[in-house]
Amino acid sequence: MGTRLKLVVAYDGAPFAGWQSQKNGQAVQDHLERAFAVVLGEKIRVHGAGRTDAGVHARGQTAHVELPRHSLDPMQWVAALNTSLDSRIRVLRCRYMPSSFHARFSARGKTYRYRIWNDRILPPLEVGRAWQIARPLHLGTMVAEADAFVGRHDFSSFTANRGQVEQDTHRKIDAVQVRQRGRCITVEVSGEGFLYKMVRLMVGALVRVGWEPARVGEISLRLREPERASANSRLVAPADGLILIRVRY
Amino acid sequence: MGTRLKLVVAYDGAPFAGWQSQKNGQAVQDHLERAFAVVLGEKIRVHGAGRTDAGVHARGQTAHVELPRHSLDPMQWVAALNTSLDSRIRVLRCRYMPSSFHARFSARGKTYRYRIWNDRILPPLEVGRAWQIARPLHLGTMVAEADAFVGRHDFSSFTANRGQVEQDTHRKIDAVQVRQRGRCITVEVSGEGFLYKMVRLMVGALVRVGWEPARVGEISLRLREPERASANSRLVAPADGLILIRVRY
Repeated sequence: MGTRLKLVVAYDGAPFAGWQSQKNGQAVQDHLERAFAVVLGEKIRVHGAGRTDAGVHARGQTAHVELPRHSLDPMQWVAALNTSLDSRIRVLRCRYMPSSFHARFSARGKTYRYRIWNDRILPPLEVGRAWQIARPLHLGTMVAEADAFVGRHDFSSFTANRGQVEQDTHRKIDAVQVRQRGRCITVEVSGEGFLYKMVRLMVGALVRVGWEPARVGEISLRLREPERASANSRLVAPADGLILIRVRY
Repeated sequence: MGTRLKLVVAYDGAPFAGWQSQKNGQAVQDHLERAFAVVLGEKIRVHGAGRTDAGVHARGQTAHVELPRHSLDPMQWVAALNTSLDSRIRVLRCRYMPSSFHARFSARGKTYRYRIWNDRILPPLEVGRAWQIARPLHLGTMVAEADAFVGRHDFSSFTANRGQVEQDTHRKIDAVQVRQRGRCITVEVSGEGFLYKMVRLMVGALVRVGWEPARVGEISLRLREPERASANSRLVAPADGLILIRVRY
């Protein structure tokens, strides 16, 4: 049997330093690598489908490892890893995959959900889990404007520079759904791939339109003429309202 | 205008030492009294409708204060208190009341909700907010058995001794509703008043019946013949699944 193990992982973003391994050892990747070391007696690398920033939550982050030898059954891996992990990180399921499987390069798409709490007061149990917006948001305008994102566009005005140059900034978005339930507005975005901070900048743009419906059309303009979009007009939604829901393969 | 102010307060139970003032100053009452001191420049006492244990959450805890003088409007009080409070405690609303109003003695009833997560794995965002039960629970039996609580009964086998003697242990329960949504089972209990740990012992008894439907009738028996109920048969649901939803006046 195989030695390449796929993991689906959920975590609370608040207590960790994001997905990617950090010197302080407090990233989710560090915690998973220590849990594997406990079981295997040696350190192996955990490869994630993508990085999530500090504060961002996951319900279905996906990763793979190349095991030194076939050892436990998938169910046993789930139990063994969860036993040594902090309770704010859970391995939901494991599965052996062909060695061609790669959590990042085999991914065909991702879905993120963003939570906005539209009220004067943020309930205590929503702290760290939603972006509080006190000003009333016009839902209909946000729903209509969200459609502008669907399709393949140049998202260069919806990313923060992380120092890379000449990266292709075109991405294909499959769906953006804006829904309201009580005081909570959720924005769910599915796409083939995402640039750095892209979902948070998309949500920021939708919130601006929700504040001022007169801005309708601004998103289409930023997608058509990204070089004309001023960096000052960008609103980045905070990390802690964001959840990585699933990675598709 | 009046000087007796009623407050409706929500809090995350996890970071605090319960409702009632503690030497370490980390109870919710301590935080509220410090917030009043910041605004008034002097310390006043905050009277709660009831104590909640460490870990228990609130959406609608109620309290009152006797102000040294009429000062701010209710809306201003909400804003002023929330400005100095930890974000995991929020004053939702304030209202001036006649001086006969007392948060505890005027209360006519309370509603609590308990959250059970019935799955092998507790999602990270549910840590501290639900009681994880891995064994399957039989919902129909729990729903049926919950009815046994409704009415006025001697709840002496559904309380933990807090050192009081000769306390009347009869209480009237108005409704107990057990509902399931996905993996989450909620138990909502409304009643005139509750003994110490009563809701958590009621939920513990419902979970035992959910595990072993053959125990049907055990709750009625414990209510009819409390002196025969063995302390060993008691299961106390953990604090962190409990939420005080509202206090009725």
